[in-house]
Amino acid sequence: MPAPHASIGGMASLRASGTTAIRYGTMREQVLGLTVVLANGEVIRTGGRARKSAAGYDLTHLFVGAAGTLGVITEVTLRLQGIPETIMAATCAFPDLEAAMNTVIATIQLGVPIAKIEIMDALQIEYCNGYMNLGLPNLPHLFIEFDGVPEANRAHADLMEGVARDFGGQGFVFATDRGEREQIWTARHNNGASSLHARPGSLVLATDVTVPISRLAECLSETHADLEKVDFPGPISGHVGDGNFHVLLLLDPKSDREQEQAHWFMDRLIERAIRMDGTCSGEHGMGLAKKKWAPVEFGEGAVEAMRTVKRAFDPLNILNPGKIFD
Amino acid sequence: MPAPHASIGGMASLRASGTTAIRYGTMREQVLGLTVVLANGEVIRTGGRARKSAAGYDLTHLFVGAAGTLGVITEVTLRLQGIPETIMAATCAFPDLEAAMNTVIATIQLGVPIAKIEIMDALQIEYCNGYMNLGLPNLPHLFIEFDGVPEANRAHADLMEGVARDFGGQGFVFATDRGEREQIWTARHNNGASSLHARPGSLVLATDVTVPISRLAECLSETHADLEKVDFPGPISGHVGDGNFHVLLLLDPKSDREQEQAHWFMDRLIERAIRMDGTCSGEHGMGLAKKKWAPVEFGEGAVEAMRTVKRAFDPLNILNPGKIFD
Repeated sequence: MPAPHASIGGMASLRASGTTAIRYGTMREQVLGLTVVLANGEVIRTGGRARKSAAGYDLTHLFVGAAGTLGVITEVTLRLQGIPETIMAATCAFPDLEAAMNTVIATIQLGVPIAKIEIMDALQIEYCNGYMNLGLPNLPHLFIEFDGVPEANRAHADLMEGVARDFGGQGFVFATDRGEREQIWTARHNNGASSLHARPGSLVLATDVTVPISRLAECLSETHADLEKVDFPGPISGHVGDGNFHVLLLLDPKSDREQEQAHWFMDRLIERAIRMDGTCSGEHGMGLAKKKWAPVEFGEGAVEAMRTVKRAFDPLNILNPGKIFD
Repeated sequence: MPAPHASIGGMASLRASGTTAIRYGTMREQVLGLTVVLANGEVIRTGGRARKSAAGYDLTHLFVGAAGTLGVITEVTLRLQGIPETIMAATCAFPDLEAAMNTVIATIQLGVPIAKIEIMDALQIEYCNGYMNLGLPNLPHLFIEFDGVPEANRAHADLMEGVARDFGGQGFVFATDRGEREQIWTARHNNGASSLHARPGSLVLATDVTVPISRLAECLSETHADLEKVDFPGPISGHVGDGNFHVLLLLDPKSDREQEQAHWFMDRLIERAIRMDGTCSGEHGMGLAKKKWAPVEFGEGAVEAMRTVKRAFDPLNILNPGKIFD
């Protein structure tokens, strides 16, 4: 039986080691302009270097995320961000994922400009402990980064520590020294490797749903309940400021049963995310494996509108055919 | 002779009283999803409530800014922002626009999360003084807002004051009390009314170019030089964190000569912005008046790509025909 997804273990762990800088917006928002080769061979330039524009159609963001189905991107103009004066990393353990999520929501609502905020569930922490002997409590953890003026970082960390304590958080630690910061982030940066170490030889499949942050605790809780019904383990790490999380399904590549369970698990997860006004893919695209979800998530009308765009730009269907939708 | 632009005095002053919250991204980035009625009567839903998505084409941002030429937007889902714990307003005078711009650039590069930052030139300040007896020095001013935790606001304001002083800034004042904050922002919020007061009965035309922030001082300086060659006054206020500024052309509605000069001035301004990798419109769109700039700014290939999208969505050309491009 083929793997349910096209991604392979190495890719999945590479992806999962990425973190999201929420203070600076999404990756998509960093793209100011593109050079694109169209299906007819025409080379066009979209966008520019201005930070905002109300001139003409936003072709830039039509091509970003189209997975090469509308044109081939050959140049990208990105917004640059200044290097912050100081960076402060922090981590904190929570009795459960809901407490961690409540801390995230309250902190964001207080207007604290968090640079990064990531979550890992108890199983993922356990795997990291096993891989690197970190000695963290086997509980869900948040990993946070503040950046900017030192006094501001300190004030933001103090505020967040207070919020975390209100929700039962414990062992809040923070550091500005580079080595200590890297120590704090070690678990997060090794979640892929530690997961493979916990079940050597696994076929790793990573899920990629995103839901509104207000629904994330509920979505994680239902996902955990499903994980109890399958034979394989599924540690979770998430870009929690975006409502996006990845379950790493650690499958026995020889077990048809586990791969069937993986299909069941992923279908339910995506259906759940869509029901919660979320998306089947926050970061990695739909490719072939998720295209059956296009009409469910977007509606038939919107899929037909996407087909209209595709036919207009690529009437002979020569650009990455068959991806995203049929 | 008809007015060179479709905007009228009241609209222009209403627009010019808007300010831009740069810390939270552009207006476009606040739009998560839409309901759109297409030309064929089909109603589609784009986007959703997830903060990010890599699923399907980004139809949302194709329709935003299309000025109704691709479909009629009937519902918008916006990202919400928490109300900050405290807001701090600040203002500072500078010997010239370049000093003010250098302060802005250095502050942004230091990673200070500014909520708002706006500029007004000496003429605009003079008009505000005349209208409201504010007693500000007749010099270019920045108007700034920080928000969040009090200690962070204070640290950011202190840092920016130091930077401003390095560039010759004087009279840096800040306030957190609501009444005092409104006092600080009074000039900015009344720039339209004060301009009309300075030349009663004017036909007011507002320009809308945006350039990379690094080119803004140069763009403003060349624009000031052009203003010395025309008969009408042109006070300037700008959303300086975005590189976007508005010149309010205060025209004698009975003077053909001034309206001809206005054409000349605006053409040169837009040509200058495009030459500096900017755009003819940062906020207000191209409509009819700016569509001649589409091939200059985007290139013929990109305009043809936009036409491809337009023809695909509106083959009978019934949706706001003739706007943006021919």
